[in-house]
Amino acid sequence: MHIILYRNLIKPEMDVLKRLLTNAKLATLTANGEPYGLIEDGALVIEGGRITWVGKAADLPSHYASLSADDIGGRLVTPGLIDCHTHVVFGGDRAREFEMRLQGATYEEVARAGGGIVSTVKATRAASEKQLLEAALPRVDALIAEGVTAIEIKSGYGLDRETELRMLRTARKIGKLRPITVKTSFLGAHAIPAEYKDKADLYLEKVCLPTLEAAHAEGLVDAVDGFCEGIAFSPEQIGKVFDKAKQIGLPVKLHAEQLSNLNGAALAASYGALSADHLEYLDEAGVKAMAESGSVAVLLPGAFYTLRETQFPPLDLLRKHNVPVALATDCNPGSSPLASLLLTMNMGCTLFRMTPEEALAGVTREAAKALGLDDQGTLAPGKRADLAVWNVSHPAELSYRIGFNSLFKRIFGGSE
Amino acid sequence: MHIILYRNLIKPEMDVLKRLLTNAKLATLTANGEPYGLIEDGALVIEGGRITWVGKAADLPSHYASLSADDIGGRLVTPGLIDCHTHVVFGGDRAREFEMRLQGATYEEVARAGGGIVSTVKATRAASEKQLLEAALPRVDALIAEGVTAIEIKSGYGLDRETELRMLRTARKIGKLRPITVKTSFLGAHAIPAEYKDKADLYLEKVCLPTLEAAHAEGLVDAVDGFCEGIAFSPEQIGKVFDKAKQIGLPVKLHAEQLSNLNGAALAASYGALSADHLEYLDEAGVKAMAESGSVAVLLPGAFYTLRETQFPPLDLLRKHNVPVALATDCNPGSSPLASLLLTMNMGCTLFRMTPEEALAGVTREAAKALGLDDQGTLAPGKRADLAVWNVSHPAELSYRIGFNSLFKRIFGGSE
Ligand SMILES: [Zn+2]
Ligand SMILES: [Zn+2]
Repeated sequence: MHIILYRNLIKPEMDVLKRLLTNAKLATLTANGEPYGLIEDGALVIEGGRITWVGKAADLPSHYASLSADDIGGRLVTPGLIDCHTHVVFGGDRAREFEMRLQGATYEEVARAGGGIVSTVKATRAASEKQLLEAALPRVDALIAEGVTAIEIKSGYGLDRETELRMLRTARKIGKLRPITVKTSFLGAHAIPAEYKDKADLYLEKVCLPTLEAAHAEGLVDAVDGFCEGIAFSPEQIGKVFDKAKQIGLPVKLHAEQLSNLNGAALAASYGALSADHLEYLDEAGVKAMAESGSVAVLLPGAFYTLRETQFPPLDLLRKHNVPVALATDCNPGSSPLASLLLTMNMGCTLFRMTPEEALAGVTREAAKALGLDDQGTLAPGKRADLAVWNVSHPAELSYRIGFNSLFKRIFGGSE
Repeated sequence: MHIILYRNLIKPEMDVLKRLLTNAKLATLTANGEPYGLIEDGALVIEGGRITWVGKAADLPSHYASLSADDIGGRLVTPGLIDCHTHVVFGGDRAREFEMRLQGATYEEVARAGGGIVSTVKATRAASEKQLLEAALPRVDALIAEGVTAIEIKSGYGLDRETELRMLRTARKIGKLRPITVKTSFLGAHAIPAEYKDKADLYLEKVCLPTLEAAHAEGLVDAVDGFCEGIAFSPEQIGKVFDKAKQIGLPVKLHAEQLSNLNGAALAASYGALSADHLEYLDEAGVKAMAESGSVAVLLPGAFYTLRETQFPPLDLLRKHNVPVALATDCNPGSSPLASLLLTMNMGCTLFRMTPEEALAGVTREAAKALGLDDQGTLAPGKRADLAVWNVSHPAELSYRIGFNSLFKRIFGGSE
């Protein structure tokens, strides 16, 4: 029997790994009757980069007993965290706009000074793939430092063919350069670019849909996203994008009901969406539609906080209808320049009144669902051995602390 | 001429250091006519742990030109950050209480389960100095990792002689173990311990004031603090504590006007207080009193956020009367388990509508004032060479980003 412990490897050969973790408090996030699916005095076996056994150390099958044990020192082990909604690839920043607003400038004055999403589109178009990568990696590394093992990355600041493709290529590259799973979303329907002002349909026809096809042909797209809102695209227009996604066999998701209720979540649900995101203005009909389609509700408290929203997402309705609820950073340069998933958990609790257990499920089990990652998000046999080990004695501490990183170590595919 | 660059030293011999930083963007926080007191293409000379020259690189006096230059690569240099209100020394945590509340428990149920400040007092009394130190250091290190070079630490979870002394000794020890300036505040008048329920005056007479004298005799106290509120001590009782402080020659400060207006800030001002802190319910009379006494207004957005307050501190009145405004974490286990001063800056802007320039001044120049640290908080000749170097192109970015640490390096007393 070969016991090989890899350290400091970026992409290990998964199939030779065999490890035993003992003396661990396991937050499995499975339905074992305990809060958090907790197992005290737990052990966990990893083989070939996958979890093959999880349980009480006392119940460890004898054929695993000969594995040399990695004593976790009583620490908490959770699934690796998953950030299921980010826009980490972009050019420039919007700090000056943030400052202008706080100095009392109106939205019009900010716009005249070149602010708003227009400024990010301009900076992103001007940036090379190398520049986009160099700007994105510190944000990704900040997430990784907090135990994140999978992230979603969207396009949507190019709004032209070449830049959208470049953003997606950058996202794929991040998945190669860092030991995390990266899922990409094509978000050509994020905003209407200046050159197509008042011609949204023409933009969709001439730019967005052909670019989606090109990106898909290049293998750059895992899902198709859109922004359904008065200031962006109508449900009818989003329908055209989703029809194309369906035609080429890609799952969909949607920025919906953030600033008003256009029944975007129900629209997305009718396409079997992976998720609908934001959802402050979601009503019960929308919740029911999501429940029926099995779509995940992705809440984004960083944007709620930054925009000082007062309309809360309908958490009680989502609970009532058993819609899975995920939490994500929405890391973006405008409405949520947030690069901490732990802080997002605290915001989910403090601002939205989620419980710490819901918050942890929201960045593990439910976030995995929102990305269609069947083999991540819980500690169970068959799942990828993507784990986070924490210097805390109870999982509620992860949501309770603010601006403090309790990570002890992170295990990706069984390797450190 | 000796040029010695110390690296990785905890407490260097200050008097042999001589350094030149060039190619720096200096946010001096001095009144040089530019926002942030900014100097582009700046240079800074350090001698004996102190700044001896600051200005445009082009204006560097010729006698400094022979110093070998440390090229900062165009990065931003600010004064080291100062957290002027913390309770980082305490036993236990309150994660379980946080969870119970989010699960719908009432305050009474939480209290019956042993929650509230009582639980922290119990855990702190039970902790040895070593245990308090081991619990506090990760919080302090999180602050240091974000460029903090000075912090204030309060007692106030002992409420008995031995534990209050132990907390202050722990605080002093932190100042020896870590390369930061630590200022201590005696906060015996933080809460009324269970054993003196309804006998606040007796507690002050028998425990608080004698302990203050003992702590002062041991050299453990830099300032005297109190909590003036319906749930804590009345203005008359705080007056007794301040009289004792005055008698033994210690400056005062106060937790005031957090939950109601008891005119605590005016009371503190009448004793020439260094600062009055929280201040959500401060009125214009209190603002005027603070302006006259030169007391700093220390705002604590972490507590405002955690308690979901809706009453905002009167920032416009503070501006109108030129009261210096500082920002601090209030790091504590109950109302602000926050260990990030950068996030505090973002909260100061996002929640309280401070400008990024006010936020940066609030954790440097004004925070130094709040601690009576005459030689810290700005980049100017004579000041301690406590600096933070940032991977940002404009100081507004420090407040704009959320949950992201842009620190490149930190210089303490001229050493790294
Ligand atoms: Zn988004
Ligand atoms: Zn306090």
